[in-house]
Amino acid sequence: MFTPMFSTPEAERRTGATAWAQAMLDFEAALVRAQARAGVVPPDAAERIAAHCRAEEFDLESIARRAVGSATPVIALVADLTALVGPADRPHVHVGATSQDVLDTAAMLVARRALRGVLADLRGAADRCAELAREHRGTLMIGRSLLQQALPTTFGRRCASWLTALDESADALDRVVAERLAVQLGGPAGTLGSLGDRGTAVLGHLAAELGLAEPVLPWHTDRTRVAELAGALGAVAGALGKIALDVELHAQTEVGELAEGGSGGSSAMPHKQNPAGSVLITAAAHRVPGLVATLLAAMPQPHERAAGTWQAEWEPLTELLRLVAAASSGAERLLAGLRVRTDRMAANVELTAGLVMAESASAALRGALGGTEARQLVAELCGRVAERGGTLRSALLADERVRAVLSEPEVVAATEPADHLGSAGAFVDRALARHDLGGNR
Amino acid sequence: MFTPMFSTPEAERRTGATAWAQAMLDFEAALVRAQARAGVVPPDAAERIAAHCRAEEFDLESIARRAVGSATPVIALVADLTALVGPADRPHVHVGATSQDVLDTAAMLVARRALRGVLADLRGAADRCAELAREHRGTLMIGRSLLQQALPTTFGRRCASWLTALDESADALDRVVAERLAVQLGGPAGTLGSLGDRGTAVLGHLAAELGLAEPVLPWHTDRTRVAELAGALGAVAGALGKIALDVELHAQTEVGELAEGGSGGSSAMPHKQNPAGSVLITAAAHRVPGLVATLLAAMPQPHERAAGTWQAEWEPLTELLRLVAAASSGAERLLAGLRVRTDRMAANVELTAGLVMAESASAALRGALGGTEARQLVAELCGRVAERGGTLRSALLADERVRAVLSEPEVVAATEPADHLGSAGAFVDRALARHDLGGNR
Amino acid sequence: MFTPMFSTPEAERRTGATAWAQAMLDFEAALVRAQARAGVVPPDAAERIAAHCRAEEFDLESIARRAVGSATPVIALVADLTALVGPADRPHVHVGATSQDVLDTAAMLVARRALRGVLADLRGAADRCAELAREHRGTLMIGRSLLQQALPTTFGRRCASWLTALDESADALDRVVAERLAVQLGGPAGTLGSLGDRGTAVLGHLAAELGLAEPVLPWHTDRTRVAELAGALGAVAGALGKIALDVELHAQTEVGELAEGGSGGSSAMPHKQNPAGSVLITAAAHRVPGLVATLLAAMPQPHERAAGTWQAEWEPLTELLRLVAAASSGAERLLAGLRVRTDRMAANVELTAGLVMAESASAALRGALGGTEARQLVAELCGRVAERGGTLRSALLADERVRAVLSEPEVVAATEPADHLGSAGAFVDRALARHDLGGNR
Amino acid sequence: MFTPMFSTPEAERRTGATAWAQAMLDFEAALVRAQARAGVVPPDAAERIAAHCRAEEFDLESIARRAVGSATPVIALVADLTALVGPADRPHVHVGATSQDVLDTAAMLVARRALRGVLADLRGAADRCAELAREHRGTLMIGRSLLQQALPTTFGRRCASWLTALDESADALDRVVAERLAVQLGGPAGTLGSLGDRGTAVLGHLAAELGLAEPVLPWHTDRTRVAELAGALGAVAGALGKIALDVELHAQTEVGELAEGGSGGSSAMPHKQNPAGSVLITAAAHRVPGLVATLLAAMPQPHERAAGTWQAEWEPLTELLRLVAAASSGAERLLAGLRVRTDRMAANVELTAGLVMAESASAALRGALGGTEARQLVAELCGRVAERGGTLRSALLADERVRAVLSEPEVVAATEPADHLGSAGAFVDRALARHDLGGNR
Repeated sequence: MFTPMFSTPEAERRTGATAWAQAMLDFEAALVRAQARAGVVPPDAAERIAAHCRAEEFDLESIARRAVGSATPVIALVADLTALVGPADRPHVHVGATSQDVLDTAAMLVARRALRGVLADLRGAADRCAELAREHRGTLMIGRSLLQQALPTTFGRRCASWLTALDESADALDRVVAERLAVQLGGPAGTLGSLGDRGTAVLGHLAAELGLAEPVLPWHTDRTRVAELAGALGAVAGALGKIALDVELHAQTEVGELAEGGSGGSSAMPHKQNPAGSVLITAAAHRVPGLVATLLAAMPQPHERAAGTWQAEWEPLTELLRLVAAASSGAERLLAGLRVRTDRMAANVELTAGLVMAESASAALRGALGGTEARQLVAELCGRVAERGGTLRSALLADERVRAVLSEPEVVAATEPADHLGSAGAFVDRALARHDLGGNR
Repeated sequence: MFTPMFSTPEAERRTGATAWAQAMLDFEAALVRAQARAGVVPPDAAERIAAHCRAEEFDLESIARRAVGSATPVIALVADLTALVGPADRPHVHVGATSQDVLDTAAMLVARRALRGVLADLRGAADRCAELAREHRGTLMIGRSLLQQALPTTFGRRCASWLTALDESADALDRVVAERLAVQLGGPAGTLGSLGDRGTAVLGHLAAELGLAEPVLPWHTDRTRVAELAGALGAVAGALGKIALDVELHAQTEVGELAEGGSGGSSAMPHKQNPAGSVLITAAAHRVPGLVATLLAAMPQPHERAAGTWQAEWEPLTELLRLVAAASSGAERLLAGLRVRTDRMAANVELTAGLVMAESASAALRGALGGTEARQLVAELCGRVAERGGTLRSALLADERVRAVLSEPEVVAATEPADHLGSAGAFVDRALARHDLGGNR
Repeated sequence: MFTPMFSTPEAERRTGATAWAQAMLDFEAALVRAQARAGVVPPDAAERIAAHCRAEEFDLESIARRAVGSATPVIALVADLTALVGPADRPHVHVGATSQDVLDTAAMLVARRALRGVLADLRGAADRCAELAREHRGTLMIGRSLLQQALPTTFGRRCASWLTALDESADALDRVVAERLAVQLGGPAGTLGSLGDRGTAVLGHLAAELGLAEPVLPWHTDRTRVAELAGALGAVAGALGKIALDVELHAQTEVGELAEGGSGGSSAMPHKQNPAGSVLITAAAHRVPGLVATLLAAMPQPHERAAGTWQAEWEPLTELLRLVAAASSGAERLLAGLRVRTDRMAANVELTAGLVMAESASAALRGALGGTEARQLVAELCGRVAERGGTLRSALLADERVRAVLSEPEVVAATEPADHLGSAGAFVDRALARHDLGGNR
Repeated sequence: MFTPMFSTPEAERRTGATAWAQAMLDFEAALVRAQARAGVVPPDAAERIAAHCRAEEFDLESIARRAVGSATPVIALVADLTALVGPADRPHVHVGATSQDVLDTAAMLVARRALRGVLADLRGAADRCAELAREHRGTLMIGRSLLQQALPTTFGRRCASWLTALDESADALDRVVAERLAVQLGGPAGTLGSLGDRGTAVLGHLAAELGLAEPVLPWHTDRTRVAELAGALGAVAGALGKIALDVELHAQTEVGELAEGGSGGSSAMPHKQNPAGSVLITAAAHRVPGLVATLLAAMPQPHERAAGTWQAEWEPLTELLRLVAAASSGAERLLAGLRVRTDRMAANVELTAGLVMAESASAALRGALGGTEARQLVAELCGRVAERGGTLRSALLADERVRAVLSEPEVVAATEPADHLGSAGAFVDRALARHDLGGNR
């Protein structure tokens, strides 16, 4: 009922039961081929076995059901594969491997395949941020801290912040995918005992077959790789969640600065512009930290192979991949369709009648009056504006103490938001430069 | 691929897409009937609408797909229901309700239906514990702390501990199910604005229709109920996880005191008695705290209805129900089939050559020698046993300082494990009494 | 540096090192007294020992330092206590107890003492909510869903929601404090082996001495009680976090409906009204779910006593108590000082020019036009208002299709927010009634 | 009471109130100096201000107390610093910065300073693992999966697994420390508005002053850096927790293969060898995932600066640093003192009377009999050994079906554990090579 909201069709394809089964079978195919290259298995037997390693030849529901008795689907899968191949080839199926070799390698394959699409979506979302940052480099917007209006900034500056968070978290994920997704092959005790002295050769060939990294040694109960993957997904989800939260806040009726393209209608309230896309990203991102914690907490695994904590990884890892896929894909869509209401941004900057310029007004007075006195004077004028109306600028212009030290153009300059953007533009340029650089990777 | 290991067929039926859809439709049917009772909707229209509230009349995949645009499946479901009923009845469908009313009430129904089976399994598992506690009330076993042998206890005493944890956590869950699963009905702003002055009457009738509690007021952004449910499930999972961990530890090759009935075979190692049932319970229990945290973290929901944190509840709550169902059902099976090797328990008590009786030996000497000297003397003798062999009893009997103050029968009594079980039996009896009492509930 | 923001002076006093030490010593004093009552220890020795059970007689830093070697501070504490008492009384110190008996009972005492203040603050905060709900029972405010303006409600209705969440979560916490905080006494293997047949008698006297519940049996590795306490604290924190989030959102510059009394000033921006109180409650509440998960994850503890997971409870439990104390006390202060800007609430209801009344306008037209046509017509008029200005009411009055079926008073009535509050007032009354009832407890 | 068990004296020094205050003051000193270099502040004023940036000149408790009103200790700190410097220099204090600039930079400094010691301890622990791996490269030990004896391996192979996990997780942490700990400087809206066009220059100088990375742009609400730090600490804690869990399991009375040097004595049981060091590492590691989740969940921070989620980071980050410090330091100590009982390892390999060699026996028979038949025959013989005693080797030698195809030396070879270690030695060598390589970093 909820799957389409918290996954994508591609992620479903890449992480569903068939994808897992195919990844396990890819392991078995690659294993016999690697063993053929190492001289452990006859090459033609390897090819005949590999030819059967296609998920559609298997009854996956039966395998899943039979998994309960042994706490792993691998035994049933290998039994069915063995039954499929010719009797002469049977001794060459799954030789020297343990069920965790199959599942861990499959998990890495599933992750890599799912994350290819996720990374493309993240890069796409970052490109959208870059476009927005470039287009709105000079679009005045009020900056807000603690949900209060603070000082002027630009919408481009905000987009630059989104952009860098996406670029940096995507780069970190990219690195984990490229360097840390490794094959698993150790046999029941992590020694490759039944492969004699050819264990490390087979391990190397297996990694080459599957295009995964070759580990220093089997990592059955060293879950550093899984932890790093989980951590990288957690950071990505947080970066996406921040964008969605911002869109929700800017889309508030009272703020009105952003709206989602094709906003979700409400059943009962035709005027509402529900930020449905942001809501789903927020929901997906919210669920990620608990799953990351579950995977981290599963790291202390006993002895050579675990008794429950490893088994606890399978579904949470799958879930993480789906949620991050949904959030990434949703964020690209959200950003591509984002409607930016620059008029509302401009209007909101004026909402406090210039009080947001109080700091720069103080700064302008500081030279002549000293910091404390300048601040007190501006505070007094701010209070007056709040009570009696008018703007800070008019109050400053009307105040003799101010006019004794500042000319009218100086007062105007001190209270002009667009003149107090500091390095906002420079930060946009730096973020774009970093993005263009990173985009070539 | 993993579902059968982390759910049960019943839980799948009770928490799957069809179950959620039916629960939502049950809400719609109960709503029109409640409105008919309150005079808001004509009774015959209500019955005609209710007659269509059957999940098999709906294209659930289509509804799930259309949910993405509005971040809720309810709009599509209500549209399809409206299209199913006759034109004259359409104005009476879903009147005054908001999508969260539907989903929250459905969540409570799904929870109640799934938990009925879970509670039965928990009570069944507790009954198995009670039988084991009764049967092994006097079965000597070494008690262990920090994974070290400590002092003698009985296996019955351990089972009594499992029993009380199950009884108490099941009672707490039972109370949440009975008292805290409530209908939700508030309309878009929690005021039941479009029901005029009949809102609270409809609310009361709705609760009666569905057999759920009637809340003080709509709880759209007051998630105390969800938190309490999550907390109760978390405690149950922990109690089950403790049992599974103990079985795993006692089933270790080197300990050998417990074995699972029908232990999962290993593909490669015919001699292994894999505790597959315990492993799956451990794995399920391990995943629960992260999900509970996700639900607790979703509690601070803004305004009248949330923008992401509420939506983040649906799948984790479903997941919690499945995992606890799998663990409860698995635990009942595990306990029913548990093989208790009293010979290994007895042998392990002797493993330290009596050193585990050092404390009672000290106690026996304390009166004559004082605590410090008694402890030092026993420690010295323990060291000798560890180095040179023999037993603590023989070392005590051979030591003149001991024999000066204790007779041979006194030494024997002080080092007889079965004579130092203190209140172990009494605690078993208390746990059984509490269970029998609770079992009448 | 951060303590005062995330604790309270009282919580520091109740949960600090001295409080823990005193609670441990209270256990030792109560233990000897209970043993005296059971005839295990001479009464006068018991009183002499108990007289030394005062934290100020101990070097707590030394005890804490010496704890590292044994992974518990109890051994050092008991050694120091033993050294303090006269030689003749030494054999009667800590007889039959294990270090976990001391620490678990101390944890329960610390929790009870800290939670007395927390519950008072929660009840106080609920009283403030009740006052606000009563005062603002009729204060019109726009209801918001997904951060969008939805339909009218009242501020009183919102306060009633806060109130019920506080009442219900405080009641749940109250019940845990009253029923589930129990003494711990089992000795090293949970059998009270060295107390012979007087174990359960001592247990009962101990519970009476300390005013804690008497458990069915020692709960060394049955952590249900800790889990229930953690769950109840989690729900309370969530209820408090919701209030703080609402205050932050309503205090936004663009919304301006609420402000904190004595809002935290900003160093640089004199006009800002930082919701510092809400921010600290939000921060405290945010940290609670992770700590609850840590405690739940620690539930599966091996054998008779754990090897790391139990030890992992001490600081997180203390932390939970402090955070919930800070949030409760902060919430009472926040609510007591809350400034409610009813003018801004009224103005914001008008912000959409009546579009928030679209649903009730549709409802008014439904009878004559049918639901679909009514909705389409209103949607069309809403679109016109959004484009060309004016209000929904004026657009309805100007539309011939509307006027063919509704009179002017009917249009006015259909678009008057204050006339569409449904059961808002009734819900306030129900929440107040429940509060008054509960307040008698 | 618990601090020494869950921190280290160095970590306390590096992360305590004084350390935080000094880090904040280091920011203020570096800021004025950077501004002096950028021509914003007179160099001599900068030096005079910097001279006062010493924690011992401040009343830290007062600052902490005053933090409550503004939800940050920075305002009070800056006020006190301003009061300390001469009137003429006051306008140059904290110019253009916001309180988050101070705290975020301070957090990075605190992290870097604390992690220097942590990384040294981790490298030290890895060195100890390397020594153990080298020394025990050929020490026969039974490999265990699901807590069951599985196949032979070596203790060196296990140590190699510990080693690689430490090396890889420490490298990842090292990279975060070197590359991702950056200064923060953005001013209230992240634009450095009051620094005019010199913002980026000051930012660059500030980074150089403090030896932290220069970020692309201020990262007030982009918490990717904090998430990466948390993730890296989470992986390290998991790697350490795995070692501690293994030690606890191997130290079980029934296993007895490892013991801690200077094992923690029990108060009541002189014979117990409590693995107190492992217990504390386990406890510390157990608490880390919840804290990591708290930090990840805090990532979606609104607008330019957050309202509660950022403030929620301070104590959990500090806590993470302390816990990982305690676990790292504890692990180095644990590994340095580890007592390896090779006799017990050898004895345990024999515990199943050779059944652990069943797989290699099957393999030896597979050529002649085919896989299925070989497996069945060995299973039959295993069953006989389990029932009637003897060893698998003797059963094989006595079986005619076996002897028809295998000679006595072949049977002996097939059942000799030390001859079936496969790549165990090679994996040790690879792990050592990787360690030596990494050690040069």
